[in-house]
Amino acid sequence: MTISAGTTLRTLRERKPLVHQITNYVVMNETANATLALGALPVMAHAREEVQEMVVLAGALVLNIGTLSPHWVEAMLLAGKTANASGIPVVLDPVGAGATRYRTETAKRILDEVDVAVLRGNQGEVATLVGVAAEVRGVESIGVGGEPAELARLVAENLGVVASVTGAVDHVSDGDRVLAVANGDALLAAVTGTGCMSSAVTGCFLAVKREAPLEAAAEALVAFGVAGENAARDAKGPGSFHVNLYDALAALDPSTLDGRAKIS
Amino acid sequence: MTISAGTTLRTLRERKPLVHQITNYVVMNETANATLALGALPVMAHAREEVQEMVVLAGALVLNIGTLSPHWVEAMLLAGKTANASGIPVVLDPVGAGATRYRTETAKRILDEVDVAVLRGNQGEVATLVGVAAEVRGVESIGVGGEPAELARLVAENLGVVASVTGAVDHVSDGDRVLAVANGDALLAAVTGTGCMSSAVTGCFLAVKREAPLEAAAEALVAFGVAGENAARDAKGPGSFHVNLYDALAALDPSTLDGRAKIS
Amino acid sequence: MTISAGTTLRTLRERKPLVHQITNYVVMNETANATLALGALPVMAHAREEVQEMVVLAGALVLNIGTLSPHWVEAMLLAGKTANASGIPVVLDPVGAGATRYRTETAKRILDEVDVAVLRGNQGEVATLVGVAAEVRGVESIGVGGEPAELARLVAENLGVVASVTGAVDHVSDGDRVLAVANGDALLAAVTGTGCMSSAVTGCFLAVKREAPLEAAAEALVAFGVAGENAARDAKGPGSFHVNLYDALAALDPSTLDGRAKIS
Repeated sequence: MTISAGTTLRTLRERKPLVHQITNYVVMNETANATLALGALPVMAHAREEVQEMVVLAGALVLNIGTLSPHWVEAMLLAGKTANASGIPVVLDPVGAGATRYRTETAKRILDEVDVAVLRGNQGEVATLVGVAAEVRGVESIGVGGEPAELARLVAENLGVVASVTGAVDHVSDGDRVLAVANGDALLAAVTGTGCMSSAVTGCFLAVKREAPLEAAAEALVAFGVAGENAARDAKGPGSFHVNLYDALAALDPSTLDGRAKIS
Repeated sequence: MTISAGTTLRTLRERKPLVHQITNYVVMNETANATLALGALPVMAHAREEVQEMVVLAGALVLNIGTLSPHWVEAMLLAGKTANASGIPVVLDPVGAGATRYRTETAKRILDEVDVAVLRGNQGEVATLVGVAAEVRGVESIGVGGEPAELARLVAENLGVVASVTGAVDHVSDGDRVLAVANGDALLAAVTGTGCMSSAVTGCFLAVKREAPLEAAAEALVAFGVAGENAARDAKGPGSFHVNLYDALAALDPSTLDGRAKIS
Repeated sequence: MTISAGTTLRTLRERKPLVHQITNYVVMNETANATLALGALPVMAHAREEVQEMVVLAGALVLNIGTLSPHWVEAMLLAGKTANASGIPVVLDPVGAGATRYRTETAKRILDEVDVAVLRGNQGEVATLVGVAAEVRGVESIGVGGEPAELARLVAENLGVVASVTGAVDHVSDGDRVLAVANGDALLAAVTGTGCMSSAVTGCFLAVKREAPLEAAAEALVAFGVAGENAARDAKGPGSFHVNLYDALAALDPSTLDGRAKIS
């Protein structure tokens, strides 16, 4: 399967897949707007009464544990299992895994009970889930030992997922191959929820390329990273960068995107 | 009753009515900021412990089912009935009705148990509530048969509300008259929650013109639409448009607003 | 203890303290981004299952009752008591106290059961908590009798807290001294959640100056007020002001900040 963020983005904008997101209170507006700016349709629904009916309408399901509570965990499991039964790909963003037992255990429980296609997290979060020592301060990854490329490979292999591990350079692995994506800008770390947005964008790409989750996850990070680079150009700080980011996602040009990809 | 968005906006800014909103997690900040930018005062409160006490302080109540769960539905019913008992007008935004049974049934239940003054939704959502076939993808209206003006009239007649049905052209009806409002900009569809904002703005106008809900609802769409047109002028995409929208709502000039109205 | 917002800001950016926030749905993204822009690390966590474990990782805890419900109140009490046991300073923002009994009583209950270091609210909210007559419309303070400086002193004395009472001019008191802070801009009142942001910024300053809560609270208002002044410069309304505010918080210069302070 070839890698072409431009081709997948073009398909995405034609099909406008619905991306069902059960995510945290902090970033709901932001991930919905990132999804819409990219060209897909977001829907947020978390009640046990409706998640099963909603998810089967969707092209992908994104689960994000950023502001957990028991009802939401139940809804995530219910939606995730229903997605699996219908062949709808699931992205998990284990926000803050490693910071509290509740987050770590919930992320592990979702990985146990749901077939997760792509696990998108920072190094500290994903390291925690495979027992590699890591320091997580709140929802920030402070320090992890070892090589990030090898960490991505190990996580993918151990958990049976595509691991999409973001940082200064991102690494995406299916346990066998490892792709490094060097797109992005330091200002992404200055705005809350950009990690969550990259998970939403991963869901968008996966919705139109579910047969190739490794490639879809890498392409999503290329697209999001290039949008970040464009948004940084005339940004005066995190506020204007954040605004520019939606403009840049909407303005992404499928015909030039692959030329911008820093992927290896 | 004459239609004058400018006159009602001037009154609104003098009285600064409190608009109580029980709305969804995705747009709370956005509808609060739209309310404030326009010149009214928003308050968000959803606990059963306080909604009855809060709503009687308000000039209008806006109910929005965008991220439902059972406690929130109870609170909406409680607040709605209390508003009715005090003569406070109620706006209902049936976000995503038609997408899941839970949303459709909750919207119907609110319409049954609460006297709703204005039902503000897209064509797919309101069509669903009167049994007209419609395709709703998540929270987007994809396709509805028939004439939008006739749909608005039918919804108003069948449900005993003022129907405010937004789209490329909006249609507002009390079951007898139908007003078409052609203000707005295509970028409104590129930002999540602009429909919810138009419901909040409808609540603001209704708070100072409760005796004429048809006119208030149409005026609200004129004001919001003109703000959208102004916001689009130097927008570079959905992000900058979104920011401009708050500036434009705050800058709306009551003395020139009626000259901008595209109403028929 | 000397007052120097610049010195404390420099320390804050070196230490990057984690600031645990249990806050309302309306402003979570905004207070997280303000925290991050300033140079600290925000974390939002509200589940009883994890708040005790999360708060001990933090340099300060910010409690905000803007969109209350029973589970959240329990979490606030649990986190607050745990913070107290570990010597972690607690900021309380009693959003809307005075508007409903539920808010007033919850704020009082937190003040009873938790040792609050800084109470940051508007005049109406804090007056309510010491039985001074006040008019609160939703979450806005409309009118309070008496001198604001004396109100701050009285609240601090009666409740055993540092009272940080914001308005056109802010007053901060430990029951003995009263500091007036005149930084800020009228546009701060045009954006929802700026009060909540000032509470979050107070938490950030307190995290690195916990031994001097009076000074930390005043310095936080200086820093936030100066950022507001800078953000207002080329703002076209509340939308662009809001964006500029994050840029301005990130651009605050510790070496010039004290020269900008309007403190007496």
